[in-house]
Amino acid sequence: MSDPDQGSMTIIAWSGDLDRVWPQLILATTGAAYGMQVTVFFTFWGLFVLKRPEVRITGDSWMTKMMSAMNRGSTEHLPLSRMNFGGAGPQMMKSIADQHKVASPTELLGTARELGVRLWPCGMTMDLLGLTADDLIADLPEPVGAGAAVAEMQRSQINLFI
Amino acid sequence: MSDPDQGSMTIIAWSGDLDRVWPQLILATTGAAYGMQVTVFFTFWGLFVLKRPEVRITGDSWMTKMMSAMNRGSTEHLPLSRMNFGGAGPQMMKSIADQHKVASPTELLGTARELGVRLWPCGMTMDLLGLTADDLIADLPEPVGAGAAVAEMQRSQINLFI
Amino acid sequence: MSDPDQGSMTIIAWSGDLDRVWPQLILATTGAAYGMQVTVFFTFWGLFVLKRPEVRITGDSWMTKMMSAMNRGSTEHLPLSRMNFGGAGPQMMKSIADQHKVASPTELLGTARELGVRLWPCGMTMDLLGLTADDLIADLPEPVGAGAAVAEMQRSQINLFI
Repeated sequence: MSDPDQGSMTIIAWSGDLDRVWPQLILATTGAAYGMQVTVFFTFWGLFVLKRPEVRITGDSWMTKMMSAMNRGSTEHLPLSRMNFGGAGPQMMKSIADQHKVASPTELLGTARELGVRLWPCGMTMDLLGLTADDLIADLPEPVGAGAAVAEMQRSQINLFI
Repeated sequence: MSDPDQGSMTIIAWSGDLDRVWPQLILATTGAAYGMQVTVFFTFWGLFVLKRPEVRITGDSWMTKMMSAMNRGSTEHLPLSRMNFGGAGPQMMKSIADQHKVASPTELLGTARELGVRLWPCGMTMDLLGLTADDLIADLPEPVGAGAAVAEMQRSQINLFI
Repeated sequence: MSDPDQGSMTIIAWSGDLDRVWPQLILATTGAAYGMQVTVFFTFWGLFVLKRPEVRITGDSWMTKMMSAMNRGSTEHLPLSRMNFGGAGPQMMKSIADQHKVASPTELLGTARELGVRLWPCGMTMDLLGLTADDLIADLPEPVGAGAAVAEMQRSQINLFI
């Protein structure tokens, strides 16, 4: 679906907050709809976006266990960076979004896959956060490193760190 | 004032925190002073930068009303992402800036307009945050969507998400 | 060590949080290892990354003194943006990183210098934060302004604000 004339876009998806995941996925799907080759490299807190909804506690140290407890993750349970109010903020924001026909992160992630957006998990931060391939959604490519992300950005017209 | 040989710059202004608004506007005005065609796409919390100083509560749900109460907005009332101290931090920071002849966000926004920087409000997040055109400063262009931002970034030499 | 055919990369290092300093320095050193000319422009909280470990209180107003007390800085004492737990989070994270052979920020900063990465302190925010050249690590270039950063980004294939 990508068209070489439209160039390519690489997003370093560092954040797992709802208010940043929305721009990550809206820009990625918009670029793909325009025919760009889009790659999203999920790293640090951004990896929680790729977590399976049913997986809860991950890792084997108190730090990774507590991080997973405090970042339930998956596109269904993302916190807001501000105005979170223990999860009431994201619920209200998603309800307003729904009224205005703005797609949810879960829908956007599905659209991204349909449009051929490449979703790359960062192997190094999977280790740091105690996440394994089984904790993440199915059919992702093998985890990659910063070298692959830099090589992709060298070829891309649009590079963003979100 | 823009010079095609100098290329163009697109800034996705996502944050409404003083410590990020400063780089948004300093980089935008610097680029414009160099002859670049500069576009700033204000989205999510960044929209509060464009709020009229005299407008307070906006929207019609508890969430949008509370967001507007906690984000008084306009370039006059921006919080710091850290060290905010209930507004004392930004006041002190602006006072130090003034001593060192660093322009305030309000001055920088005026300079940006004089230099022809395009200030684009994101229509989708205006809906999410309950903001209408009347809540924003005068003489802005019509709200646009992510498609316009992506098309502009495809043409730009410098793209930043701040 | 840089190779003109590999292009160049400019990182605006705005944050001084461990979880953003890691990507700043990992991407910078990876780019340099690939032969790119890499420049990191340290501004706002990012300047604390360049602080000498033995320097504590800096500046001469209550704001700058409090900022320095709350941002001990240097690559040895960076807070996490989330899960900081009074410094226990970063210690645990660095311990996990060490087990997985992930280089620490101090090691990465050393590698960056060895690979010829240019580390530019932002003069304007040194003033705002009350930092002098003596507060920063040795052998840095003279502080520069936003103009130098924009000029460098105009030439760069990869530009990131982190």
